[in-house]
Amino acid sequence: MIIDRVEAIPYRIPMRKPLHFASGDLAEMEHVLLRLTTSDGVVGVADVPPRPYTYGETQASVIDAIQNLFAPALIGTDARDRSAVHAAMHRTVGNVTAKGAVDIALWDIVGKSLGVSVHRLLGGYADSLRVSHMVGFASASEMVAEALAYRERYGVEVFKVKVGRRPITLDVEACRALREELGPDVELYLDANRGWTAVEAMQVLDATRDLGLTFFEEPCDAAEVIGRRRLVAHSHIPVVADESAPTLGDAARELTTGGATALSIKTARTGFTLSQKLLALAEGLGVEVIMGNQIDSQVGSTATLVFGAAFAHSSRRAAELSNFLDMTDDLAAEPLHIADGRMAVPDRPGVGVDIDEQKLASYRLDGKLS
Amino acid sequence: MIIDRVEAIPYRIPMRKPLHFASGDLAEMEHVLLRLTTSDGVVGVADVPPRPYTYGETQASVIDAIQNLFAPALIGTDARDRSAVHAAMHRTVGNVTAKGAVDIALWDIVGKSLGVSVHRLLGGYADSLRVSHMVGFASASEMVAEALAYRERYGVEVFKVKVGRRPITLDVEACRALREELGPDVELYLDANRGWTAVEAMQVLDATRDLGLTFFEEPCDAAEVIGRRRLVAHSHIPVVADESAPTLGDAARELTTGGATALSIKTARTGFTLSQKLLALAEGLGVEVIMGNQIDSQVGSTATLVFGAAFAHSSRRAAELSNFLDMTDDLAAEPLHIADGRMAVPDRPGVGVDIDEQKLASYRLDGKLS
Repeated sequence: MIIDRVEAIPYRIPMRKPLHFASGDLAEMEHVLLRLTTSDGVVGVADVPPRPYTYGETQASVIDAIQNLFAPALIGTDARDRSAVHAAMHRTVGNVTAKGAVDIALWDIVGKSLGVSVHRLLGGYADSLRVSHMVGFASASEMVAEALAYRERYGVEVFKVKVGRRPITLDVEACRALREELGPDVELYLDANRGWTAVEAMQVLDATRDLGLTFFEEPCDAAEVIGRRRLVAHSHIPVVADESAPTLGDAARELTTGGATALSIKTARTGFTLSQKLLALAEGLGVEVIMGNQIDSQVGSTATLVFGAAFAHSSRRAAELSNFLDMTDDLAAEPLHIADGRMAVPDRPGVGVDIDEQKLASYRLDGKLS
Repeated sequence: MIIDRVEAIPYRIPMRKPLHFASGDLAEMEHVLLRLTTSDGVVGVADVPPRPYTYGETQASVIDAIQNLFAPALIGTDARDRSAVHAAMHRTVGNVTAKGAVDIALWDIVGKSLGVSVHRLLGGYADSLRVSHMVGFASASEMVAEALAYRERYGVEVFKVKVGRRPITLDVEACRALREELGPDVELYLDANRGWTAVEAMQVLDATRDLGLTFFEEPCDAAEVIGRRRLVAHSHIPVVADESAPTLGDAARELTTGGATALSIKTARTGFTLSQKLLALAEGLGVEVIMGNQIDSQVGSTATLVFGAAFAHSSRRAAELSNFLDMTDDLAAEPLHIADGRMAVPDRPGVGVDIDEQKLASYRLDGKLS
């Protein structure tokens, strides 16, 4: 399983409709497809979503990091020597989605080489996950219409509501409308993407107390150190660390110093290896996790699905897996499906994604032939 | 003072000798020169040192961030509208040295436009700073020889000793040799660049207790959350946060949650505006600061000097200003000098650096003419 080729391929696929949330907007998916090829022809694949407003990475920075910082540690290395690759990548700070993809592609090679699904290699707990759908910024009636449509069409019963707008009544009213129109049995939780101050977030908690919300993700910037701790201490629902905890150390610090009481795990940034550590940390410290979405393609969403379903602790809550539905197309050869509010884990060797070479050729930005 | 041109120019200047430290090595300075030009022809200048092992930035990522993420907020903006530029840059996470340089270049334009030095605009406290010289990894005798040579030649009496090697006796012996050969009056402090675990760092503190060291910078990775707090609580000297506190929020969190008891401020990553906030935070919380060096060129070192000397709290300790002596050349037209262990603040409008256009033409990597 010796790696002898590293490709970081920039590509662009338009969104069906642009996404709006407190930390950014997204009209096109400008991602990087990572392919690691071994000397015996096995290809490991992973998708890299550069998110400058979340991690500071860009398409150019991802490609530079993979080609010039990580490739020297990958070429000539056995894909099973994951720890050695991680030690080498650890010398570079940040670049989390580039690192996450390297890890996923290594696991993909191991699974394909053994003819086993990575889902089973990791633990194989469940064969499907409940799906949580993210409702982005819109008018309250549009947000309700979107949630109703997803429930009708896909059977989704869990919704993450993007909030963080001003005045806060905008979002409070949207939440109230969602609860009223969807009924008491649908699960609703909030993600402010650092859009509010801790004081505003506290007002929102008070104003929505009767709505039965389950989580409050990144209500304010974790950099608002004292306000955040006051909020976490007073919140009646868990405060989820997402972008404030992109690494094991960050997660440990936030959870042990009063910055958060739950954790979002995203394979796009922590791959499988580091995601396992985060999951163990969360389980050990007694906090819940949500499998999050980095606005992932189907290639990326499959990695989240495969990981989340592999363990009991990560499969308890609905996983955020539906963002790919907003893309006009995808590189994955086999489309993912959501039915009865669930997504089934693919039963194929490796992570379970095959790339459609014709689509890759048409969406890639580097002008090369596949 | 309307900005109408943004240039991010990659260049490379070899080092006289390669630098070795726990988090990285450096044989060539591959930096980016940032130039902002206003419609009335004033040019603001700053140097960007990409350090993948400290911040995850590369030359390519810096150029992409400046040209594609920050330039749209800069073009057409008045250089005095610094807060608006910062608000726009704040939407991008990380990219700290790219952001720091934008801030310094804005201040440079304001100073030059007013015909006033930025040193004076900031506060103008002192007209020179004591210099601390960094002694990199080598044998104990070579490290002693370097320190003696710097004292002899430049009058430097403060040395930062790079540590973090294994076995720890290597560095303990180097510290002992430095103290014995340099005498009791020279100031010595340590920087492990996260090279040790908290347990190793505690052993070093014990083994060097009689040597009169003054600070212990990044003794272990701040991500080693509980070990780090135990170390900080037990250390008889202040533990300095450097790469663990590159932003205001990080610094606040480390200082208020037991991760550090002193702060390194580097204008390369926090420019002047955010460095002022960090300085105020440190002063307010009652911890000392050290003006640090990002292995800066003379262009970058001048910014550190100008800022550090502008305030009482940042001019108390010797500033790390001598790394540029290891470069074979520099883009600055007027060389900096260290004499009697001090460096004088340039008395020129703006930050005080003029670029040698011939040198820039010869070292730039983008093949363009100046």
